[in-house]
Amino acid sequence: MLGKTYDAQNCSIARALEVVGERWSLLIIRDAHFAGLTRFTDFQRSLGIATNVLRDRLEAFVEAGVMERRRYSETPEQFEYLLTEMGRDLVPALVALTEWGDRWAAPDGRPILYRHAECGSEVHAELVCERHGALGDRTELTTELGPGMSDERMALMDGIFADRARDARLTVS
Amino acid sequence: MLGKTYDAQNCSIARALEVVGERWSLLIIRDAHFAGLTRFTDFQRSLGIATNVLRDRLEAFVEAGVMERRRYSETPEQFEYLLTEMGRDLVPALVALTEWGDRWAAPDGRPILYRHAECGSEVHAELVCERHGALGDRTELTTELGPGMSDERMALMDGIFADRARDARLTVS
Repeated sequence: MLGKTYDAQNCSIARALEVVGERWSLLIIRDAHFAGLTRFTDFQRSLGIATNVLRDRLEAFVEAGVMERRRYSETPEQFEYLLTEMGRDLVPALVALTEWGDRWAAPDGRPILYRHAECGSEVHAELVCERHGALGDRTELTTELGPGMSDERMALMDGIFADRARDARLTVS
Repeated sequence: MLGKTYDAQNCSIARALEVVGERWSLLIIRDAHFAGLTRFTDFQRSLGIATNVLRDRLEAFVEAGVMERRRYSETPEQFEYLLTEMGRDLVPALVALTEWGDRWAAPDGRPILYRHAECGSEVHAELVCERHGALGDRTELTTELGPGMSDERMALMDGIFADRARDARLTVS
């Protein structure tokens, strides 16, 4: 968890990163979803990270609701970690990050391909307009303030834009 | 940057996180793309983060090729930071993370809506099959090993799966 330092951002990206923006978090989700790992020792082997870091991440996931902890053995008492619907809902973000890594940081080719189980065709993360389907170009994307935008955040950004506009006028005159 | 600790992962998600998985990285990309910020002081005001952290992130972006540094004033000498094509290509991942945050961590409603510039309809990050279009359900997604998968990583995962299968047999017998 990144703590509450992101609160002032009033942004769903920031809130997503509060839960899954820490080192290793998205790789744990990846292993849980795509490799089906559930046990502490398996995550540890796959990721090779310090056990205290892994324990912190899994506990934070349970607290946030991304995973649930389930006892699978009574003697000895042992637990496994399962993705919830909230956790599985991160898959589109994982696929989008994969494709970026494929394009910009996969010198030996793509390690994993995503396919449609039904037909075997490749699956991609795309920006899709409700009316026109997949956007041909990223410049076709625009943003609009939504109902959850706070006045404080808007005032902060307006201040930045106003200062920049004033600088531009000074440069011209 | 997360350094080379992710190397053993042989995974495009891990490689993406090497570049943009650090605290604040994706929020800097967000501000650069959606708010059009370019200057150190503007990123600092928007994010409210320590200047040394921001300087490290921007320098790492320039080194990785996600941003380029451009001089916009000679006296005094001042620079701005502009997203490259590699940086703008992170937008689908940002939209996917936004939508996850909207669904699971936006108690006051969505702060930002994404729209198609041309028609004003909403835009979403979706998993799209090359043949069938948007997947109706995330369970329709499957993975396959690609040409870039390393033998070392495969052997590691095979070991984990083999141990888990043996445990399952022991439990049944």
